[in-house]
Amino acid sequence: MATFCMQTLGCEVSAINTVNYSNHVAYKRFSGRKSTPEEVASLYAGLKNARLNDFDVMLSGYCPSAALVEEVGKIGRELRSNATSKGKPGSFFWVLDPVMGDNGRIYVAEDTVPMYKNLLEDADLILPNQFEAELLSDVKISDLHSMHAAIESLHTKHQLPHVLVTSIRLPPSGSATPSSEEQDLSATAKLSVVGSTRTSDNKPRLFRITVPSLPIFFSGTGDMFAALMVSRLRQAAAEAHLLEKRSWLSPDEVAPKDLPLAKAAEKVLASMHAVLKDTAERYEKEAQAWESEKHDGSEEEVETLRHLRLTKAAEVRVVRGAKWLREPPVMQEFEARTVFLNGEGR
Amino acid sequence: MATFCMQTLGCEVSAINTVNYSNHVAYKRFSGRKSTPEEVASLYAGLKNARLNDFDVMLSGYCPSAALVEEVGKIGRELRSNATSKGKPGSFFWVLDPVMGDNGRIYVAEDTVPMYKNLLEDADLILPNQFEAELLSDVKISDLHSMHAAIESLHTKHQLPHVLVTSIRLPPSGSATPSSEEQDLSATAKLSVVGSTRTSDNKPRLFRITVPSLPIFFSGTGDMFAALMVSRLRQAAAEAHLLEKRSWLSPDEVAPKDLPLAKAAEKVLASMHAVLKDTAERYEKEAQAWESEKHDGSEEEVETLRHLRLTKAAEVRVVRGAKWLREPPVMQEFEARTVFLNGEGR
Repeated sequence: MATFCMQTLGCEVSAINTVNYSNHVAYKRFSGRKSTPEEVASLYAGLKNARLNDFDVMLSGYCPSAALVEEVGKIGRELRSNATSKGKPGSFFWVLDPVMGDNGRIYVAEDTVPMYKNLLEDADLILPNQFEAELLSDVKISDLHSMHAAIESLHTKHQLPHVLVTSIRLPPSGSATPSSEEQDLSATAKLSVVGSTRTSDNKPRLFRITVPSLPIFFSGTGDMFAALMVSRLRQAAAEAHLLEKRSWLSPDEVAPKDLPLAKAAEKVLASMHAVLKDTAERYEKEAQAWESEKHDGSEEEVETLRHLRLTKAAEVRVVRGAKWLREPPVMQEFEARTVFLNGEGR
Repeated sequence: MATFCMQTLGCEVSAINTVNYSNHVAYKRFSGRKSTPEEVASLYAGLKNARLNDFDVMLSGYCPSAALVEEVGKIGRELRSNATSKGKPGSFFWVLDPVMGDNGRIYVAEDTVPMYKNLLEDADLILPNQFEAELLSDVKISDLHSMHAAIESLHTKHQLPHVLVTSIRLPPSGSATPSSEEQDLSATAKLSVVGSTRTSDNKPRLFRITVPSLPIFFSGTGDMFAALMVSRLRQAAAEAHLLEKRSWLSPDEVAPKDLPLAKAAEKVLASMHAVLKDTAERYEKEAQAWESEKHDGSEEEVETLRHLRLTKAAEVRVVRGAKWLREPPVMQEFEARTVFLNGEGR
């Protein structure tokens, strides 16, 4: 997913797989194996030895063990250090997707959490979901105030330049000044992302984009989001003439909703919504087809077959929807908005 | 290379890597390892177990051992047998690229050759280069007559439906009736492909396409050609309403130059020429840049660095040239022509 999305947007990709499975695990049946830290280290060493490690961006995603997180961290630090010692601090940018869990449940080894915390000071952008943002910041997020606090903590403690929190479902009450926008945000059919690029004194600049949520579980959308952000953020940073600056940090006067991070996320979410809507339509047809067919076998067998069939039907139609990646539909509703907390002026 | 090319043309791909290297081997420096037959078998078993093995097409390429060729053969045979037992013989098509060597030199284990011969009766299309066509047919190819004999042997001995021989450089003399076209074909700056789809009585229908050759060694062009053929041949076969028929065989009255195989190859070669021309231009700039720079170190060190730099410069610019894959430039000079040998009427 990540490789195809980046390539479709024009990036030359050197992919190092951290797992090599036959299919994604939501099928509940798969084969293959996890990469070892030694294998990842060896592949990177091969690239380096062939002088192929002059990367503009590194995207790191799911790692099946804390040791692998550590190994990926070594690579990120080395690439960072190369860029710094060449006197070109903006020539390397690390997008870190700290894949640890979702909805209150950790699905990696517990010792992965502190390992990710160790990496934060070297990353440029992290893309946690709401639960992962809580794990990394040690702030429980229940409304926009606590979201602000969590992001401020990440900016301050680790000098993290950019944070984008995905898949946010805030409860209906709880935000300090529930505006009509916030009520939208908390309705079940909406998802939000909240992002921030820190100012020179580590203050958050919070923006929010709210998107319709589709009633289907898709696999790979986190990787899709991260991969598309890699390309769109670099593009937005280039347009703002920030590629020479370390971490592509915007000047302090840039408003939250005008940040390159916000502009990039708008395009990425518009692309994703088009692809996922198409996937959901196809899924519905397949679900109806299944219902209309006769199925022999025990209840358990039929349920297994149903699960496999519908999981396949929910495979994100990214290959057929590549045009939407290249040319995101213009969606006014996906505009980034600055988040104003009570006491702040508009 | 193969995965991206197929995806760009709209194919959903399940890729099973037969090697997992940091970079291609023309760098002369790389790390990583070969897949074992057990790993390939396990990944396929995983797909099958999750009901994800309903493939329309299988493309098999480089296999680092005879045992791996055999394993890939098992998968091809099983998919063929599934299609046949469902009463849909045209619903599976196997494109086999018998990667064994080039220019008279075998670069795989010797026992790979008989293993590939064993697979020929189950493949639908093979894509050997001139040397590989000799190895598989046991016919030495020195002119269009012997090319015809080699292809006829493959059609007859193995009932092979389609053969496309790539990278042909025939010597200037040697063809029976050297026409002006054949003289073009033998000039050093031209490459030919010769293809054939057998008739119902296993006779060859030979066509030829001649393309300009670029003076640079590119890696991955064999995989690029094979991957693009997968998509373009299925498209051409669909247009000719052949997808229900086993091996998408054209009726006997279809002329060589009008075969779906010929129509597909025209598009693929036009796409490739556009991408490779762009790559060659970039390569030349890099080569000039290298020459104009000062290089410290021993002669050996400088030569190594030069080799790495120029090998990178020759990396096929397929990601940036994806538009040429989607929309091949119309190139009249790349038209397929029927091959007439002496004694045959026009």
